[in-house]
Amino acid sequence: MIKAEEAAYTIIENGNVTSPSGFQAGGAAIGIRKHNKLDLGWVYSDIPAAAAGVYTLNSFRAAPLLVTEESVAFEGKLQGVVVNSGIANACTGEEGLANAYAMRKAFADQLGIQLQHAAVASTGLIGVQLSMDKIISGIQAIKDEGKADDFAKAILTTDTCTKQVAVSVEIDGVPITIGGAAKGSGMIHPNMATMLAFVTTDAVIPNDMLEQLLKKTTDNSYNMITVDGDTSTNDMVLVLANGKAGNKELNPTHPEWEKFSAAFQYVSQELAKKIARDGEGATKLVEVHVQQAKTAADARKIGKAIVASSLVKAAVYGADPNWGRIITAAGYSGASFSPDKISVWLGDSMVVQNGNPTLFDEAEASEHLKQEAVLITIDLQEGSEEATAWGCDLSYDYVKINASYRT
Amino acid sequence: MIKAEEAAYTIIENGNVTSPSGFQAGGAAIGIRKHNKLDLGWVYSDIPAAAAGVYTLNSFRAAPLLVTEESVAFEGKLQGVVVNSGIANACTGEEGLANAYAMRKAFADQLGIQLQHAAVASTGLIGVQLSMDKIISGIQAIKDEGKADDFAKAILTTDTCTKQVAVSVEIDGVPITIGGAAKGSGMIHPNMATMLAFVTTDAVIPNDMLEQLLKKTTDNSYNMITVDGDTSTNDMVLVLANGKAGNKELNPTHPEWEKFSAAFQYVSQELAKKIARDGEGATKLVEVHVQQAKTAADARKIGKAIVASSLVKAAVYGADPNWGRIITAAGYSGASFSPDKISVWLGDSMVVQNGNPTLFDEAEASEHLKQEAVLITIDLQEGSEEATAWGCDLSYDYVKINASYRT
Repeated sequence: MIKAEEAAYTIIENGNVTSPSGFQAGGAAIGIRKHNKLDLGWVYSDIPAAAAGVYTLNSFRAAPLLVTEESVAFEGKLQGVVVNSGIANACTGEEGLANAYAMRKAFADQLGIQLQHAAVASTGLIGVQLSMDKIISGIQAIKDEGKADDFAKAILTTDTCTKQVAVSVEIDGVPITIGGAAKGSGMIHPNMATMLAFVTTDAVIPNDMLEQLLKKTTDNSYNMITVDGDTSTNDMVLVLANGKAGNKELNPTHPEWEKFSAAFQYVSQELAKKIARDGEGATKLVEVHVQQAKTAADARKIGKAIVASSLVKAAVYGADPNWGRIITAAGYSGASFSPDKISVWLGDSMVVQNGNPTLFDEAEASEHLKQEAVLITIDLQEGSEEATAWGCDLSYDYVKINASYRT
Repeated sequence: MIKAEEAAYTIIENGNVTSPSGFQAGGAAIGIRKHNKLDLGWVYSDIPAAAAGVYTLNSFRAAPLLVTEESVAFEGKLQGVVVNSGIANACTGEEGLANAYAMRKAFADQLGIQLQHAAVASTGLIGVQLSMDKIISGIQAIKDEGKADDFAKAILTTDTCTKQVAVSVEIDGVPITIGGAAKGSGMIHPNMATMLAFVTTDAVIPNDMLEQLLKKTTDNSYNMITVDGDTSTNDMVLVLANGKAGNKELNPTHPEWEKFSAAFQYVSQELAKKIARDGEGATKLVEVHVQQAKTAADARKIGKAIVASSLVKAAVYGADPNWGRIITAAGYSGASFSPDKISVWLGDSMVVQNGNPTLFDEAEASEHLKQEAVLITIDLQEGSEEATAWGCDLSYDYVKINASYRT
């Protein structure tokens, strides 16, 4: 994990994907989602930007992922991304793939950019074909100016709020900005890839370095959240770096590489946490910090098993300090550790010490679980590695939302 | 999997663990559970019986498992099992282990059997010490006659019903009986072991053959169910075979081995299905049958991923034929298969054919999902292996039960 002490970035108030120089974004309602909700969004860079992506590991890969991957692979550059919500264009066969290509072409034509510099993304219902007349006419109405807030709204499905962030970091004496927007609320259990997130920066950084940084950061952010254990067919994170900041090219030999990496990781983690907090039906953000693990992989396994446990999630919803479920999840996580050395805290209350129950103050522990952000800390006393995972509680509303999402 | 065509057993009406010759069982209320519920159960064989067990793979193994494993390992024999519900005696350190040993000793003394022929099991709240005065005085009140129904009741926690079954199968011209009782409702996601189940038989079978059969059967029964994805610290299945039926010794060279195996598997699968159907908050049993897989492991992975998916479970609760969630779960299961060859049925409605959506009758599919037993069939067209997994739907009551189980 990139250490926090390297952090020397400033959070930009109301920052978004257009905070970096040379980016524009917008959104429109084209009639795919009900109630005239925004459902077509786009991001555009004045000039072609170095690009990198990570994609779902689900065996079923949605058509827009195949098309976008092809674009990014062409020469590692993107100039624009178009996204629709409401229909995922996943499990839609050859017709779905042809539609994703047609969507890319219409967007590239409309913006006057090279075909392989355009990316497409879709999110929503699986197994339904896109209404291509709405998509094409919607794209043909895109103007080169728009509102970043509309983009952040247009990519949502069951989300209850937009998810945006931006930071500024000084590199080579010039300010570099990194902005991002994401969506995700259900079917969230990223696996080496993630839900939809779009990150922009005006940094000068080649696409291979960008890809390396994205992959490393994904393991500490998007891959450390879960809402319901279901890995989506459409997970994707795209990063565009258009170089407008004019810094010296960033790579691991640059003296300020760690500083930039920390700022980039902050953006990724904030977007990931915003998704976890807005999990379907969630009333709380749950953060699990695992420390003194033998390996980072062990720490990650335990953190993810705990935030993924339905029993832990329901106990947090009910503010029940039922720590037995927490160590049970650690026990089946597959991580290597000694059960007789584990200690557990709920907020500041130590509930397990060296594998044994403590006489903790139940009222105090329960009070912590009633907070809007719950912290569970695990100490393994096995080594010096650590990881943090984020999730949410399991409420009646999760069931309500998912018993009737489609029909 | 042992094929059904080998099945030549008869189901015994109201059968239970005392259906085989020479077994007795009973239960009592000793004040661990509230409302005077039965919470101490015991099974006893007239003579020492060949015994085998499978145990949880959770890193935290409850004290009674350690003691029981020691008993079974001593000479592969058991004559009695004592079980308490209400407190799991898990994560209770050295005091908990000493309590489990004391529980075994009191039980062996009371029945006048060898110490290492006694097994103990506990189920309930994690991290709390047993009230040993209640346990010891309860054990000292055990008479050698009791009701099998009381045993089945005494091992329950959040279960809403008892889980019992027995079959009769003729081997060497003599009738052999196999009976079983199980408990389990939450924290159900067995992994190479299971929740609590106790199987008795009067068959003549050596303990190593019994163990081999138990392990094989577990993979097709207890290990194929899930309620909430949480693997418990106390999972255990014990089998006792006292040989009173007088058949020739059973082993794989016996001409009727497959016949006996099929009867044994039926008992295991019935107990497993009863647990899945009584999952916390469940309103339906969900059965997923995966056929034409390349390997049995692939078929199992897909079946378990589908029954474990919160999104699939919530859709079944809402009778929503949202098949996208089903193939998404197959896609992230880790199984090897071609997405463009998969077909999916909800009951008799084919909803996906060769990876593409069909124009199915939504009303008919939804009607099937309203049934008390829901069948999802997956055909991979990859080979000839198959597997069946069982689970339940996800309802508001699951959240209700688990938000307030302890406090």
